[in-house]
Amino acid sequence: MTTDTALPPTPDYDAWPIEARLQAVESSPRQVSVRWSDGRVSRYHSIWLRENAADDTTVNPATRERILDLSTLPAWPEIANAEIDGSGALCIDFVPEERRLRFHPGWLRAHDYDNAADDEAPLVPVTTWRGGPGERPDSLDASGLLDSEPGDDAEEAILAPALEAILGKGLARLRNLPTEPGSLEAIARRIGPVRPTNFGQLFDVRAKPEPDSNAYTSIALPPHVDLPTREYHPGLQCLHCLENSVAGGEAVMLDGFAVAEALRERDPQAYATLTRVRWRFANTARTTDHVWHAPMIRLDARGELLEVRIADFLRGPLQTDFAEVEPAYEALMALQRLLREPEFAIRFTYQPGDLVIFDNRRLLHARDAFEGDSGHRWLQGCYLERDEIRSRYRMIQRARRQRRIGAEER
Amino acid sequence: MTTDTALPPTPDYDAWPIEARLQAVESSPRQVSVRWSDGRVSRYHSIWLRENAADDTTVNPATRERILDLSTLPAWPEIANAEIDGSGALCIDFVPEERRLRFHPGWLRAHDYDNAADDEAPLVPVTTWRGGPGERPDSLDASGLLDSEPGDDAEEAILAPALEAILGKGLARLRNLPTEPGSLEAIARRIGPVRPTNFGQLFDVRAKPEPDSNAYTSIALPPHVDLPTREYHPGLQCLHCLENSVAGGEAVMLDGFAVAEALRERDPQAYATLTRVRWRFANTARTTDHVWHAPMIRLDARGELLEVRIADFLRGPLQTDFAEVEPAYEALMALQRLLREPEFAIRFTYQPGDLVIFDNRRLLHARDAFEGDSGHRWLQGCYLERDEIRSRYRMIQRARRQRRIGAEER
Repeated sequence: MTTDTALPPTPDYDAWPIEARLQAVESSPRQVSVRWSDGRVSRYHSIWLRENAADDTTVNPATRERILDLSTLPAWPEIANAEIDGSGALCIDFVPEERRLRFHPGWLRAHDYDNAADDEAPLVPVTTWRGGPGERPDSLDASGLLDSEPGDDAEEAILAPALEAILGKGLARLRNLPTEPGSLEAIARRIGPVRPTNFGQLFDVRAKPEPDSNAYTSIALPPHVDLPTREYHPGLQCLHCLENSVAGGEAVMLDGFAVAEALRERDPQAYATLTRVRWRFANTARTTDHVWHAPMIRLDARGELLEVRIADFLRGPLQTDFAEVEPAYEALMALQRLLREPEFAIRFTYQPGDLVIFDNRRLLHARDAFEGDSGHRWLQGCYLERDEIRSRYRMIQRARRQRRIGAEER
Repeated sequence: MTTDTALPPTPDYDAWPIEARLQAVESSPRQVSVRWSDGRVSRYHSIWLRENAADDTTVNPATRERILDLSTLPAWPEIANAEIDGSGALCIDFVPEERRLRFHPGWLRAHDYDNAADDEAPLVPVTTWRGGPGERPDSLDASGLLDSEPGDDAEEAILAPALEAILGKGLARLRNLPTEPGSLEAIARRIGPVRPTNFGQLFDVRAKPEPDSNAYTSIALPPHVDLPTREYHPGLQCLHCLENSVAGGEAVMLDGFAVAEALRERDPQAYATLTRVRWRFANTARTTDHVWHAPMIRLDARGELLEVRIADFLRGPLQTDFAEVEPAYEALMALQRLLREPEFAIRFTYQPGDLVIFDNRRLLHARDAFEGDSGHRWLQGCYLERDEIRSRYRMIQRARRQRRIGAEER
């Protein structure tokens, strides 16, 4: 037993409470096995431990990014001795390097790949939903958001449930926000940087004299995702209502995953076709020319729903095998019939100060036509990547862990 | 034969020269077959023609986006009559709609899916490359770029070969550009909007007192892509040299696709492992927390190389099946041996006014350590999406087609 009494650093800036203590350790040259105070046993590989050490030869202490180049080690790192030190850390002597390195038990336990929870599980469980008459999106009072300080409790009290709703249901409706034009940028920045496009940093959704998108007219828009013409269509969309005094223009939102699941159930052949046929999405505009090919329903490596890419007005001429064309259109029309069914849609009228944030790779949005001369309807919008919302939510989780550590130490 | 003598519009803003004339047409209710003046025969489906018409009931004439909702048609559109009109356009009577629609022959020929060229073929053929001592990146004199007008001949003369190099080889080196800080933004905007990140709109690559990335120190950086911790790491990276008077700091570029191909050849098992194991990429920093899981080598649906995601200093602790861990590290070390071989690398020293633009999902970049007190080394960087470069290049192709049509009409 060594005499260290202070826990070693972790290789990152995160906070790792001690959920269980290390009680026993056994090792062979290439593996170590530890027993925790709650009886769990975890094995770690020597090479994994070596490259995830937190000392200054492995990690740049300022950036907490790795500086070790594994290929410069004299040989595959092996364990000469393993023990639990006076602080409760795992302490290992590596050969042939002749280096003693210590591992924080909270960090080790949180990265226990031997008893792994699914490391790729979503941060918040994903729940698909249906709408129907009278259904409304979850609403959150966000009136204090811009008066809060980034990272403070007031901000967290608003952002945490909003991010959970977006991660889980794909959608949150924040209410009572300012209606100053441009204020969306400061609001979005509470989550992360905005992803600009050829439509600008923020885009104005209102009837314009020379529209470069059907969104900028007063006509109805069918259920769609934005920018399906991109290699990766934006992960999140924000729509912020500044004015709304027109007749019509009701907003519609559908869970694209729920629609896809219903199609799989009711018309498995159409579903299979839409996961296979690569449609041509195109916006061959005056000054830009965006084209991308993708199926309307994309599955991940495990066969789970990954994203939908549906936007009738941004489909270009289908270019696929001749024999696939009629089945493709049959499947498309089966999908369109589902999209028109009221059971999937939630409908609401934007009030000034409303901000709807939704997953643009999962949800579909639509709007009814409105009477342009009956008043003003002005939304401002922007895009963010889903990375930003996950990063922001992980920071909230980290702050909660830090408070737990603080409470334990008091 | 109708008496129309002017060609109909096309459903987009593109330019479609008449490569061949329509000479004969035959139809059944759901298909039409045309013979062109060069003998080619092309078939089109009735429903495909109907939804790709260019009239005002199908396409919003201002946005050229579709307004037709197929599901509102009374039935599957069928062809009652098909003929070639006086302008050379295909003219079709649709039932039960009772609507006559005309199709531009240049547009029809360019979207001939019955004799399809691969619509997803890259805009410029992709050629993998190796480096080796003395190899340098292609250099282009871009001194006139910021004095040109967007879209004029002078801009096209600089951008066209640069975009071709980036699309084909993944890399272009533009030289003799301004060295004013911030000028990168105006340069990048000639291609498209910048993708900002938590490191800013532009980021400064130089040794900083409180670095939040190893890039912002003077240490060597191993071959890597930027931001592998994102769901979609940026498609393009720009690095613009403002100052470089240090000893060391030579830049290194490798074609990640060439390295992956060499690995597939020399160590197929390591290659297979790296296409399968999902590494954890993580940047658990002070104020952001980005995590993504992906294989280091990603293949598309056809088994072709899609992207590489390699960055040793942004790999977090691997969380995968226990039995996969040793094979994963063995494969990683095989890859790292290849990355160190001089045959893959091109090396060069940044001169002030150089701008290197490269595909950040294909190329790896690295740099030697430099002596921070021997002078100044200051690069500014930014990211764009690959969509932007493709859109910009398609606009150049469109301008070329428009000039061809203009020349034919003169």
